[in-house]
Amino acid sequence: MTDVAVAGGGLVGLAVAWRAARRGLSVTVVDDAPGTGASLAAAGMLAPVTEAGYREEALLRLGAASLERWPAFAAELEADSGLQVGLRTAGTLVVGFDEDDVRELDALHAFQRELGLVAQRLTPRETRRREPALATRVRGGLLVEGDHSVDGRAVHAALLAAAEAAGVELRRERVADVAVDGGRAAGLVLASGEPVAAGATVLALGAHSGALPGVPALPVRPVKGQVLRLAGADGLLGGTVRALVRGRHVYLVPYGGDRLVVGATVEDRGFDARVTAGGVHDLLHDAVEVVPEVEELELVETLARWRPGTPDNAPLLGPGPLPGLVLATGHHRNGVLLTPVTAEATAELLATGALPGVAAPFTTDRFGRT
Amino acid sequence: MTDVAVAGGGLVGLAVAWRAARRGLSVTVVDDAPGTGASLAAAGMLAPVTEAGYREEALLRLGAASLERWPAFAAELEADSGLQVGLRTAGTLVVGFDEDDVRELDALHAFQRELGLVAQRLTPRETRRREPALATRVRGGLLVEGDHSVDGRAVHAALLAAAEAAGVELRRERVADVAVDGGRAAGLVLASGEPVAAGATVLALGAHSGALPGVPALPVRPVKGQVLRLAGADGLLGGTVRALVRGRHVYLVPYGGDRLVVGATVEDRGFDARVTAGGVHDLLHDAVEVVPEVEELELVETLARWRPGTPDNAPLLGPGPLPGLVLATGHHRNGVLLTPVTAEATAELLATGALPGVAAPFTTDRFGRT
Repeated sequence: MTDVAVAGGGLVGLAVAWRAARRGLSVTVVDDAPGTGASLAAAGMLAPVTEAGYREEALLRLGAASLERWPAFAAELEADSGLQVGLRTAGTLVVGFDEDDVRELDALHAFQRELGLVAQRLTPRETRRREPALATRVRGGLLVEGDHSVDGRAVHAALLAAAEAAGVELRRERVADVAVDGGRAAGLVLASGEPVAAGATVLALGAHSGALPGVPALPVRPVKGQVLRLAGADGLLGGTVRALVRGRHVYLVPYGGDRLVVGATVEDRGFDARVTAGGVHDLLHDAVEVVPEVEELELVETLARWRPGTPDNAPLLGPGPLPGLVLATGHHRNGVLLTPVTAEATAELLATGALPGVAAPFTTDRFGRT
Repeated sequence: MTDVAVAGGGLVGLAVAWRAARRGLSVTVVDDAPGTGASLAAAGMLAPVTEAGYREEALLRLGAASLERWPAFAAELEADSGLQVGLRTAGTLVVGFDEDDVRELDALHAFQRELGLVAQRLTPRETRRREPALATRVRGGLLVEGDHSVDGRAVHAALLAAAEAAGVELRRERVADVAVDGGRAAGLVLASGEPVAAGATVLALGAHSGALPGVPALPVRPVKGQVLRLAGADGLLGGTVRALVRGRHVYLVPYGGDRLVVGATVEDRGFDARVTAGGVHDLLHDAVEVVPEVEELELVETLARWRPGTPDNAPLLGPGPLPGLVLATGHHRNGVLLTPVTAEATAELLATGALPGVAAPFTTDRFGRT
């Protein structure tokens, strides 16, 4: 019997496992294909300020708390794994294309100032001075020096190595269910039927967390996102560029030398895994509008995955609907950003039985009794 | 020693080998990756009439001669291989979007009538009655009942099987050069240095035919084409649709039940194998303009390959620049269409020493002495 069984070997599951193991707990992670879910598609933006939506102040605070933890988290992860994770601190620029886009930039800026966040409104000239590859038709920008990025796939690879080095056991099998014993979560059941007995059970199955046979339903639904990866972008952008192109959102996140992630569609289509002609078209169209030289880049990958969406776009953390079950899911568009704070808070709960205050607003209690 | 060594195991090389073997010759084909060049990208249009360009009447006649051969060629190939090749005889519809596009349709129609070709000018209503999935903004059409299509990849698979059944030996190694002995082509040299001695040597290396060390340079250059394959198009189109979208050409070719090939860019970029953001964007954009439902289809493949371009867009057939060397290359955009006539004429030359009249205008003599 292991102290902790973690269902899901994506960024969140592995980070929880690594931090729990580093606190002395024995941990088993179960995933038949670790890192091939939402973690594979994530652009790696660490962008609580530019991602902030209206009426999402609690989530914004959680994001800021996690962003604060990223440099130390990255340094420790790189030290433990011997691998680089590509943390970039060049800041994030949000740009707008037409009058309506610019009005939305101003509204976002006002909201940010209201919350005491640091963001700088730029003229079109200042915007292009910052990122010379931007289209000349850009009507203005908003610079958030504090919003950074990381190479999500590099982070996953490092977490695999760091978790293994910390003694985490990885079982490459499919999770069929949570084992329930006397109304209490008692580990996991593999697809083969074999049980993995554990004192505590962590649910980190991303979009698949909502409907396990033995667990009361959780308010997690798949939110499809299509993303592209381009090559040949060496030196094209200094940092992340987010844009409003006639009301439609697109982001371009440089990573790994000459690569660019372009994303992302947001689609409520259930577990539809299809990369569509329309999705790819719209992303390419908007990316080229923002940075015309994108046209000449190599399209090296198209991908569709599912974010674990929740009713308020915020994660589900802390105690689950069964005793012994701990939630680390529902991270929606913020999985990479929220990985450090999720791992820290969940490991603390597993090691001490107490959920840190930073995570307290994100238990399922906020939705009322299920 | 074999009677015939064929450099290149694409559609043309394999078809030549199959027909030559069926005439009693011993044949060896050398290709390290048969069917992964232009044959892999080909949409499979058998469309001499809608493909016809001004001042390309000789090529048009060759295309018509090959189209005429396709039904028997397909039937024999299916019988010899036991595989289907997906010949579709639903006709080809060319549509136009704006005034200029419609003017070009009219010019194409006038040219076709001048040549005695059968094509029918359709009103917008007739055009959409023929293909109800077309955008309502289509301004008119040109129906060519005689222009058909085939599944190029299925043809290649069938040729592999038929050639093998006919006793053709396939060496999966890279061709390094033509072996030259006393100024005469004497077979091939493999990348390993091993010779494949042959009485006659056929050059069917597609875009790579232009520059073999031992052979005088041929006027063949790579013409890059990017194509897409989409899934989920079951019943969407009755036949091939070609369109002029504000002066830009796009085609949509249904095949294999629910698939669609969308192509193709035409780019002079040397051997650049990159699928680009701009290329994919333009193809998706134009395809969606023509058939809006394309937006919902799954994008299953993007690909860039090189057509073997020639100065007059017509193939190089018949005797090559060295005695014993036979050309079957330079098929540019018409490789699938011209496969039967190329195979028949080349096999005839190999078996009898005489090039049939249909192929005579396509020797390198037309460019003057090299």
